[in-house]
Amino acid sequence: MRQLEERILQDGHIKSNNILKVDSFLNHQMDIALLEAMGQEFYRLFQHQKITKVLTIETSGIGIAYPVARAFGVPLLFAKKKQSVNLDGDVYSAEIQAPGSKDVNHVLVAKKYLSPEDHVLIIDDFLANGFAVQGLISLVETAGGTVEGLGIAIEKGFQSGGRRLRNLGYHLESLAIIDCIDAETGSITFRNTQD
Amino acid sequence: MRQLEERILQDGHIKSNNILKVDSFLNHQMDIALLEAMGQEFYRLFQHQKITKVLTIETSGIGIAYPVARAFGVPLLFAKKKQSVNLDGDVYSAEIQAPGSKDVNHVLVAKKYLSPEDHVLIIDDFLANGFAVQGLISLVETAGGTVEGLGIAIEKGFQSGGRRLRNLGYHLESLAIIDCIDAETGSITFRNTQD
Repeated sequence: MRQLEERILQDGHIKSNNILKVDSFLNHQMDIALLEAMGQEFYRLFQHQKITKVLTIETSGIGIAYPVARAFGVPLLFAKKKQSVNLDGDVYSAEIQAPGSKDVNHVLVAKKYLSPEDHVLIIDDFLANGFAVQGLISLVETAGGTVEGLGIAIEKGFQSGGRRLRNLGYHLESLAIIDCIDAETGSITFRNTQD
Repeated sequence: MRQLEERILQDGHIKSNNILKVDSFLNHQMDIALLEAMGQEFYRLFQHQKITKVLTIETSGIGIAYPVARAFGVPLLFAKKKQSVNLDGDVYSAEIQAPGSKDVNHVLVAKKYLSPEDHVLIIDDFLANGFAVQGLISLVETAGGTVEGLGIAIEKGFQSGGRRLRNLGYHLESLAIIDCIDAETGSITFRNTQD
């Protein structure tokens, strides 16, 4: 998605060959006009699938998933990273490995909000090793539901998550795929995507 | 706001005389059509104020603040509850007392996203003792900005936060004010609001 790529080039901050900061428009301060355009693009990419629910993970995913859920006219469910007073009764839980450490975190959703009748579109801001998305997939499949698609804002194409999820047969669409970040020259190389 | 009150009566779960669960439509699973209507109502209530930014706090505030920021055509900034990799450089920090405990938590925003030129509308899901909102106010005022208003989805009118913030002169609007929850009879009493 050219608009997102241009915004990354304009306002993203390269911290290292692995880390790109997008906190000025995506995951701390959020540019709603950009998120609306991204929501329309996700809708275009998945509109032929039957979607009954959009699932994301707190915190940064919520603003990206909101316009997608609105476009499909379905509820937005966000998984939590820890047990919370808002989480009531039985929960589905999946382990996710924390990137770059041996820690194991959990993602949780209340069982009553995922069922075998659900056809779920999973949305998240970043895809790198894919551990978080894998956790969300596990929640849906444990509930007996169907993962209809995976929509990612920014995929780090130089890490293995995207390739692995595509090899597993999931319909994965990333609005921007970064093949290389060069912190020394400050350059970012995008893979060619559809538009 | 009648639509929100009716939804609370229909789908809210009373856990005790103090605790109402709205996780089926507001803070775990989110009903986007309801959030859109709430966003329009917040816009109506604050449209005569000059707003340059909407500020909320992760996690549950984001979905409520999103349509408000869109309606005003301004960025949405969400404060974080702990230091995060997405928080870069200098931050404003405010202490918030955790309800019902002696713990002190913090809310944080990157300094570069709040300035003396900012006129801020603060949005959150619940107002009870007002500690979280007070923390957000502190962030804005420490930055030299102006708090133009406080927009709350559900105010617990039987706790002191709302009265204190109104006495301090803030323009506080709550879409639903609950004056009494009776867990024994399962009844909820709303204060009369504007519509």
